[in-house]
Amino acid sequence: MQVIPIGLRSPLAPGDDLVEEFLRACSDSGVEIATGDVVAIATKAISAVEGLYIQLSDVRPSSTACKLARGVRMSPEFVQAVLDRADQTLGCVRHAILTVVSGTVAPNAGLDAKNAPRGTLAAWPEDPDLEAWRIREEIRRRTQARVGVILVDSGLIPLRRGTVGLAVGVAGMEPLVDYRGRPDIYGRTIRITLMDLADSLASAAHAVMGEGDELTPFALIKGARVKIADSYGRDSILLPQERCAIIGSLTVGRFPIGTE
Amino acid sequence: MQVIPIGLRSPLAPGDDLVEEFLRACSDSGVEIATGDVVAIATKAISAVEGLYIQLSDVRPSSTACKLARGVRMSPEFVQAVLDRADQTLGCVRHAILTVVSGTVAPNAGLDAKNAPRGTLAAWPEDPDLEAWRIREEIRRRTQARVGVILVDSGLIPLRRGTVGLAVGVAGMEPLVDYRGRPDIYGRTIRITLMDLADSLASAAHAVMGEGDELTPFALIKGARVKIADSYGRDSILLPQERCAIIGSLTVGRFPIGTE
Repeated sequence: MQVIPIGLRSPLAPGDDLVEEFLRACSDSGVEIATGDVVAIATKAISAVEGLYIQLSDVRPSSTACKLARGVRMSPEFVQAVLDRADQTLGCVRHAILTVVSGTVAPNAGLDAKNAPRGTLAAWPEDPDLEAWRIREEIRRRTQARVGVILVDSGLIPLRRGTVGLAVGVAGMEPLVDYRGRPDIYGRTIRITLMDLADSLASAAHAVMGEGDELTPFALIKGARVKIADSYGRDSILLPQERCAIIGSLTVGRFPIGTE
Repeated sequence: MQVIPIGLRSPLAPGDDLVEEFLRACSDSGVEIATGDVVAIATKAISAVEGLYIQLSDVRPSSTACKLARGVRMSPEFVQAVLDRADQTLGCVRHAILTVVSGTVAPNAGLDAKNAPRGTLAAWPEDPDLEAWRIREEIRRRTQARVGVILVDSGLIPLRRGTVGLAVGVAGMEPLVDYRGRPDIYGRTIRITLMDLADSLASAAHAVMGEGDELTPFALIKGARVKIADSYGRDSILLPQERCAIIGSLTVGRFPIGTE
């Protein structure tokens, strides 16, 4: 599997044609896009071309946001923007409110000041799967290549400092590899294992795209064991909270502190 | 970045020389190992060569384990083995007890019946970082190549069905890329961002190694932006529970259910 960083010469701006910029950057890098490839795109690139920025000076924090802001040591405006944007808020630690947005667990509703214009927060698109689908169809129209598209943002692993990549949006590929009914190396039938290929590839892309001023909002993945399909979205990888071994265990199934 | 799956012709067995098997498999695949590469090894491969298997018929479940087993619909022997092996137990859902082992959050203390001999559970090595270090030094002795080594097992992302890869052990490389003090694309100084490169590469490896009968316990990663160093372990990527945006938010910082 090859994970090829695709960089730009200058930052994307509102109104830019994302797919055109991507195809030009591929061409500049001497990389050819083909059916079966997976195109990883940073959510920040979508924020940039669509102007998905929240102007902090426009936000009027409620008294709840002001109180919470003191606890988490964030600005009341940032907290209010998070509360406005989150589908659900789960809890908080210093500098972060844990939320669910478009089915993904993320700190601060995916809002982020880094690599966003001064005084603003970059936001995820309202429907990341639909956005991935549109980009996939546009790439297909211009190149005839049937690719998978994943929208990538930084994500968190429990008890790990530092970020991995998460597939915030998916289109054009099966996001999951289903091992149920297949044999293990001893020939026994596997009963419950599924591989979250979309998020695994998002982390692979994240490793080459970087988190700073690399100006690399794209990665092209070749040779991944991916099943290209006219499929839309991440429904198959999303899990209800009560069945999630992390969220479910720490909420409804939580042991008293100190239980060993 | 290239992520090359390195497969075997037959399963590993207790007493096999892991590094020899790995180097032979590289040579069979026509792949040369070089300084700067990262070697990803499935924890199951370590379990196999070191015979790290728990015989379920040897386990005597306590009354606590029996009670818990009914709740999670697992065998009392499996539950007892998890309680014995876990450094900490956090909570549970059906089929999984969420635990911390060697600093990593894992279901069922990393114990797994899949790809383990019948009637047994495969276990992680007692000190995965030390194990990674030994393998790294052994590769260095035999090939002169200075590589990074990560021990990979399947890990969980909140609210995602299916697995990604986690670096359960690390040696020979900086596991973290520190962006603090570096500029973002607008020239502003980044204050808090760190990238968890070890776990990102573990997911990249996971995507090519597979979860079933692929017989691919190794992957060789070339061209990752990794800093090779005589470093030992994952200390720099581990986070105290109260500062973790996932665990901290869902325990001490949890909002009342329904807070929006």
